[in-house]
Amino acid sequence: MEEGDFDRITELWLDDGATPVSCVHPGWPVLSGRGEVLRSYALIMANTDYIQFFLTDVEISLTDDVAIVTCTENILSGGPAEDGAELGPLVGQLVVATNVFRRTSEGWRVWSHHGSPVIPEGDSEDEPDTAD
Amino acid sequence: MEEGDFDRITELWLDDGATPVSCVHPGWPVLSGRGEVLRSYALIMANTDYIQFFLTDVEISLTDDVAIVTCTENILSGGPAEDGAELGPLVGQLVVATNVFRRTSEGWRVWSHHGSPVIPEGDSEDEPDTAD
Repeated sequence: MEEGDFDRITELWLDDGATPVSCVHPGWPVLSGRGEVLRSYALIMANTDYIQFFLTDVEISLTDDVAIVTCTENILSGGPAEDGAELGPLVGQLVVATNVFRRTSEGWRVWSHHGSPVIPEGDSEDEPDTAD
Repeated sequence: MEEGDFDRITELWLDDGATPVSCVHPGWPVLSGRGEVLRSYALIMANTDYIQFFLTDVEISLTDDVAIVTCTENILSGGPAEDGAELGPLVGQLVVATNVFRRTSEGWRVWSHHGSPVIPEGDSEDEPDTAD
């Protein structure tokens, strides 16, 4: 992702024909199937000139063939530059992610990714998130 | 959840000692392990007098022992009443969820739940969610 290598992203996602992948970007609805998911990454990468992930709180829950990896993604990113600037304004984002990986004959592949914004405590001017 | 039955929630979550569960409520950081997860449900239920889920877009991706279920949760909820009212104000929430289930000898159990708010398109007064 940081290198903007779309082919590598494509390889990372599970492609077994029987179990569709799913992906939720922060604030987005669910995307289902490789087509929708990979198109979303192409779109995001087209609008991102710079992105860097600082992962913290990485935790792994593992069986023989499936792993769930949760982490905090401290993201610094910038869109395309305007007015001849070298880089657009940089934006920081705090995201938590749940990633489900499946072991295949070619290695671990992403079966599901769900990222969501972390809303700072005490920042709930409207309603608190009661439940889900 | 709608019936406020904490014991039933407790039974639904995986408890195998080897593979910790994880849970993300909308806007929250990651909670890891049965202790943290179940405490969060106790807290949410203590602050929720009324909650109803209308599930849509339910999609299942299934292997022998693991299933990923994604859905949209159209939630209507209300906190404790104030000033002697019968029910607090009702709040609508649009949440998407990724749920990972494991098949055990006692049936399917929740291994991971990740819920996040859906931010309506065109509602990004600040930054768009570029990526995760």
